[in-house]
Amino acid sequence: MSEFANITIVKKANVYFDGGVSSRTLRFPDGSVKTLGFMLPGEYTFSTQDPELMEIIDGELEVLLPESEQWLKVQGGESFNVAGNAKFTMKVIKPSDYCCSFLK
Amino acid sequence: MSEFANITIVKKANVYFDGGVSSRTLRFPDGSVKTLGFMLPGEYTFSTQDPELMEIIDGELEVLLPESEQWLKVQGGESFNVAGNAKFTMKVIKPSDYCCSFLK
Repeated sequence: MSEFANITIVKKANVYFDGGVSSRTLRFPDGSVKTLGFMLPGEYTFSTQDPELMEIIDGELEVLLPESEQWLKVQGGESFNVAGNAKFTMKVIKPSDYCCSFLK
Repeated sequence: MSEFANITIVKKANVYFDGGVSSRTLRFPDGSVKTLGFMLPGEYTFSTQDPELMEIIDGELEVLLPESEQWLKVQGGESFNVAGNAKFTMKVIKPSDYCCSFLK
């Protein structure tokens, strides 16, 4: 799916790590929430509340998932899940475009 | 207005200057188009087709508008218009969040 229709978007960007990561919050008619975000090369640690599905639309990174000691390489077209109430770290190698779905 | 409702968003980011500028395209029910974008510090020259209204949601930059020799300082909450079929240059001083409206 290349577009999301019939959504509400919050105008103001979510900004992290001095702009190294920025995203927009989308709300869907069914109440679910996603963010569309962009990451420049760098290393970033995030904390989750709900479990998340991170879909990498374009780019290249490595992710260290919670409870894991193995860095996982992820490229455009691939995705990974992150448990809720956990931390994960990404080493962004190429500027990366992502869609994050918050799973209830 | 802090949100846009009932819109269609293109999932894939528009990426310029190696990610120094990235944006998302929003289509509105009346057919109009806007982008919500984010710029990291740097100097960027863009070309317009339609005239544009650039609303700076947050951040700080200077803009050199077409036919002008005077850099204009623009901060969050302020906006500027750019003529169609023209070039303009922005010196982004602080990471800046913007909304660009394409005017028919």
